[in-house]
Amino acid sequence: MPSVSNKGLSMPQSPIRKLVPFAENAKKKGVKVIHLNIGQPDIKTPQQALDAVKNNNINVLEYSRTEGSEEFRTKIAGYYVKNNIPVSASDIIVTTGGSEALSFAMNTVADTDDEIIIPEPFYANYNGFATACGVQVVPVVSKLEDNFALPPIDDFEKLITPRTKAILICNPGNPTGYLYSKEEIQKLASLVKKHNIFLIADEVYREFTYDDKVHTSILKEDGLDDHAIIIDSVSKRYSMCGARIGFLVSKNNEFIATALKFAQARLSPPTYAQIASEAALDTPDSYFEEVKTEYVARRNILIAELEKIEGIKIARPQGAFYCIAELPIKDADHFAQWLLEDFRVDNETVMVAPAAGFYATEGLGKNQIRIAYVLDQDSLKRAVHILGEALKSYNG
Amino acid sequence: MPSVSNKGLSMPQSPIRKLVPFAENAKKKGVKVIHLNIGQPDIKTPQQALDAVKNNNINVLEYSRTEGSEEFRTKIAGYYVKNNIPVSASDIIVTTGGSEALSFAMNTVADTDDEIIIPEPFYANYNGFATACGVQVVPVVSKLEDNFALPPIDDFEKLITPRTKAILICNPGNPTGYLYSKEEIQKLASLVKKHNIFLIADEVYREFTYDDKVHTSILKEDGLDDHAIIIDSVSKRYSMCGARIGFLVSKNNEFIATALKFAQARLSPPTYAQIASEAALDTPDSYFEEVKTEYVARRNILIAELEKIEGIKIARPQGAFYCIAELPIKDADHFAQWLLEDFRVDNETVMVAPAAGFYATEGLGKNQIRIAYVLDQDSLKRAVHILGEALKSYNG
Repeated sequence: MPSVSNKGLSMPQSPIRKLVPFAENAKKKGVKVIHLNIGQPDIKTPQQALDAVKNNNINVLEYSRTEGSEEFRTKIAGYYVKNNIPVSASDIIVTTGGSEALSFAMNTVADTDDEIIIPEPFYANYNGFATACGVQVVPVVSKLEDNFALPPIDDFEKLITPRTKAILICNPGNPTGYLYSKEEIQKLASLVKKHNIFLIADEVYREFTYDDKVHTSILKEDGLDDHAIIIDSVSKRYSMCGARIGFLVSKNNEFIATALKFAQARLSPPTYAQIASEAALDTPDSYFEEVKTEYVARRNILIAELEKIEGIKIARPQGAFYCIAELPIKDADHFAQWLLEDFRVDNETVMVAPAAGFYATEGLGKNQIRIAYVLDQDSLKRAVHILGEALKSYNG
Repeated sequence: MPSVSNKGLSMPQSPIRKLVPFAENAKKKGVKVIHLNIGQPDIKTPQQALDAVKNNNINVLEYSRTEGSEEFRTKIAGYYVKNNIPVSASDIIVTTGGSEALSFAMNTVADTDDEIIIPEPFYANYNGFATACGVQVVPVVSKLEDNFALPPIDDFEKLITPRTKAILICNPGNPTGYLYSKEEIQKLASLVKKHNIFLIADEVYREFTYDDKVHTSILKEDGLDDHAIIIDSVSKRYSMCGARIGFLVSKNNEFIATALKFAQARLSPPTYAQIASEAALDTPDSYFEEVKTEYVARRNILIAELEKIEGIKIARPQGAFYCIAELPIKDADHFAQWLLEDFRVDNETVMVAPAAGFYATEGLGKNQIRIAYVLDQDSLKRAVHILGEALKSYNG
């Protein structure tokens, strides 16, 4: 039998993949599993996005334009301008999800064995795209004690080599919920300019900022146009993860022209999803206000309930809808599996994402879990109660 | 300014990309351009596929399952079984177009600088995916004089090195229109078994076979289960190129499990497109019979008209909807540009795809063009008339 590639063998798996069979098994036994592990929001997709697809009048479902139609990209540019991010249609490539935007970005800035520096913990699929592109991820540790704030800029600088092509951040962060301040973004901006490398910012949670904190897009920074690359997506913004529409945005013309060549090879992004996404851009601000109010309430309940648990440490999130908690245990992988296999409260249990999978440095995050607060407030409350009882039982 | 990757710089562009501005310019001047260069069928998408999307009742457009739902894949397996290709749901990963299936396949079988042997001329985007994956394409020349039949198997064998991971064919072929015979497939099967490498077959044009010729899927071959990988797509089959749904199919469990890791990184294929594609699988055979009848008629007209042109040589296509013609000229790139810039018959001209872009070997195909016969019969007739007049003028 021919063997698969080393690349394939070393492709990392999702941090929760190992747990899925245990969750399925529990469900088969009639146990209710509350999912704290998933980044799939329960928020309704804006009606005009759904309606646009239902009312489409396509007869021949043709290829669309590789980079998205002029009209669609002009509308996307309008969204950015409204958010004080000065870009135009020609700075944008419509992609198949933020995932594809990230793949294109990595392939466009880095060759095989080149390096991209990423603060850890980070979105686990960055590892997957890096492996697929042959790029090395170089982690910089950020700490729960600091709410996962930007590590000292010296920590980045000492990792920069001739092979370093970019720094990649997620802002606000998955899995940390941390929102970088303007000062933190400016420090990164100075560093990438000094070393003439790219700064890639995954800003898919841009709207999800709380406590009156303002999001700082890297494309708002003066003098960063040649360096700044934004990864974006409609998935979380409009609760349309299944559309698979994202954007790759840069004012660096050579970057966009080169990324477009990767886009051309795959022909075009999905047509129906573009129809939904274009309509979604008309979503009124009131939608986001409601969504934000809901997430703040969820976060507040989550944090308040978690803080009742003895021995737990929490990084307080100011954005996105994730929270990392350090538990009074040794091995969150084992604990998460035990929750699904052996622990129930009134025939319910919870599924959490062990956080080690969000770190590139071996051994880090082993006593941490990521909680996604995309559930209604009652479920969240019940889930944290179960988690607290579970810890007593697990440790007792 | 930070520089882009060498990978990005070496990404090949579409053979017609250079011509697009000239076509746009001609159109601006009011000239009608007949497109013989495009693989976008004009055939109507099956109504049930269009209706399924219009009648969807999604409220939250969630991520779908990474590999496609059990139900969808079971239905896809049913399609294959009906075509005497014995696969089951677990042998299938639903992808974002055949493009993504090809990327996953290359990444799963080959590491950086590994080699994949491909008969040339071949679908130009194979080059793009190979470059993105860091894989080397090793071409084997097939010849217009032989209608682009499989080159002697020795030609393949002498190119096999320890770095060779797979042979990739397109059957029936884009851009050649050649349909490999059972004997040709068997020769390839023996070779990949002997050298313990993969055989990847792009079978997206499976239904488009003419003159009562039967398509031979590599998964019909005995003893090839560990080696055979099928790239498939709904794009051409149901005239739904804009859906962006493809399939990666193999009976090699390790291959599928590994490819699934690449699929997991990008989360899921587009949901609306899956709804359309699942409904499209119910398309009655009569649809294909009509489509096939139409394509045969188009091909016959195309060939009959081309044969009237002095000095032209044609590879007679028995599948897909492409035809390569050798023209009595030196440089098809120049000729194609000249057609758009300088030549008109009754204010009309034609756009053709210069064939050199379908060859990996420098210098081959320079006097050849690819013609896609996806236009109605009258337009085809007129286009070939213009082509004939153009050649007289160009050469005279």
